Amino acid sequence: MKFTKMQGCGNDYVYMDTFSEEVKDRSAMAKLLSNRNFGIGSDGLIFINPSDKADFEMEMYNLDGSRAQMCGNGIRCVGRYVYEHGLTDKTDFTVDTLAGLKHLHLNLKNGEVSLVSVDMGGATIIPDEIPVKPDEFDDYRNGVGSSIEVLGEKYSVTPVSMGNPHSVCFIAEDVESFDLMRIGPAFEKHPAFPEKVNAEFVNIKDRTHIKVRVWERGSGETCACGTGACACVVAGVLNGLLDKEVFVEMKGGVLKVTWDEVENKVTLSGPAVTVFEGETRNIQIPYQFAE
Amino acid sequence: MKFTKMQGCGNDYVYMDTFSEEVKDRSAMAKLLSNRNFGIGSDGLIFINPSDKADFEMEMYNLDGSRAQMCGNGIRCVGRYVYEHGLTDKTDFTVDTLAGLKHLHLNLKNGEVSLVSVDMGGATIIPDEIPVKPDEFDDYRNGVGSSIEVLGEKYSVTPVSMGNPHSVCFIAEDVESFDLMRIGPAFEKHPAFPEKVNAEFVNIKDRTHIKVRVWERGSGETCACGTGACACVVAGVLNGLLDKEVFVEMKGGVLKVTWDEVENKVTLSGPAVTVFEGETRNIQIPYQFAE
Repeated sequence: MKFTKMQGCGNDYVYMDTFSEEVKDRSAMAKLLSNRNFGIGSDGLIFINPSDKADFEMEMYNLDGSRAQMCGNGIRCVGRYVYEHGLTDKTDFTVDTLAGLKHLHLNLKNGEVSLVSVDMGGATIIPDEIPVKPDEFDDYRNGVGSSIEVLGEKYSVTPVSMGNPHSVCFIAEDVESFDLMRIGPAFEKHPAFPEKVNAEFVNIKDRTHIKVRVWERGSGETCACGTGACACVVAGVLNGLLDKEVFVEMKGGVLKVTWDEVENKVTLSGPAVTVFEGETRNIQIPYQFAE
Repeated sequence: MKFTKMQGCGNDYVYMDTFSEEVKDRSAMAKLLSNRNFGIGSDGLIFINPSDKADFEMEMYNLDGSRAQMCGNGIRCVGRYVYEHGLTDKTDFTVDTLAGLKHLHLNLKNGEVSLVSVDMGGATIIPDEIPVKPDEFDDYRNGVGSSIEVLGEKYSVTPVSMGNPHSVCFIAEDVESFDLMRIGPAFEKHPAFPEKVNAEFVNIKDRTHIKVRVWERGSGETCACGTGACACVVAGVLNGLLDKEVFVEMKGGVLKVTWDEVENKVTLSGPAVTVFEGETRNIQIPYQFAE
């Protein structure tokens, strides 16, 4: 089975298109192929399908086999994939995702895709749409940092949906030393977030530069999260901390997020890299005792 | 650049041979290709070279770019690689490593390699050859559990060399819950081991079955370590705890170790799997802030 391994800011997925080949049992395949010792190794698996509603459909799975709604770094790679594999010759096209229709724009350089910009749609701060349970907070106000208790500590959290739920915390402690492995999972499973949550912890360097670490639901810490970068900038603007065009430094690299607040349109720009092309031979995960 | 990804008990390496292509700056390449988000992703990189002394030479690098002496799971995959890639049609041949010449035997099934056995050479318990500093122990005796203090706790350790240094601890606590992330690095860097050490923590199920977790110097926890499996069985026999043919269960699967104590010859048998074949496109690791 042929595949392409791509990364956007170190957010790495295995990509396959279903234009010439049907693939069955995709959730189980995601678990198998994503395994970093016995499989190809990735943050998950993304299928690029034909679509009635858009130029393409993006069908995404996390490494635990669960279905993912959308990933800003992943969809940029979808943009590069369809152009490189000759599935389109357009540089502006649409991709259907579980979080709605997305518009992509490819920046070409010497005929090759360099940067990809994605219209990420609008942000939502309505509790039911995120979803978030205001009762779990001390004094909940939409789109503003609200106090919540996690592992016995108080955090000021701004919940935002970019099609998937995010909880954004602006913290004073350096994110590099922040204990994400302990606190990230506690946010993910906190009862305030009935569909779990992606948790971002943010240092503000100035009004156009932030540094972020991300805990993704179902995946753990990842090098970068495109929807997470967008959520951080929206939350920062709403809290009066950031301008509307911001460079977001994550472990895997730098993304640029622009929020047109009047039209509520978030645009995410960044790299999309084809790392290697491959063909599977024998992928099997033996009995392994628990971690 | 073409490559093959293989695993033995989940100990996964990128394999390349230099028969048709010269490769420069191999240490830097190991760091780059081994990166699990931006590169191919592996425990390290293994080159298969022509040799004057043996049928082949195995040149191995850890994921931090440091040179590795030898890996029992890795060398089994070397055996499969040379046969599958038509570099030999023999089923018994020799491979030169930094830990000396190794004899391999391929078990074929329907013309395909199933299991690979490796003559791992002899074990050594002479302190200078391991190397280990007896003065760091309370009451050092060669080849027997000797008491040493690590992070304020006493451990009974049997140091053994299989061409590379190992420290074997038989513990009562279930290895599955053992805090390897904290204790493994403390063993690796303990002053008793002047060239650092691979640390194994072992539960004895019965005289022919053990369960092991391994901390490899330069790599951290790995799913399995072939020389580590051998060291555990040698240490177990010397301490009167094990028979001379033992099944070693590691996270990545099961290996069989046989020790001919009279001839001091250790044989390691286990699986070697070709996971996928690939060709690199664009591998670059951006600036990343520290963990």
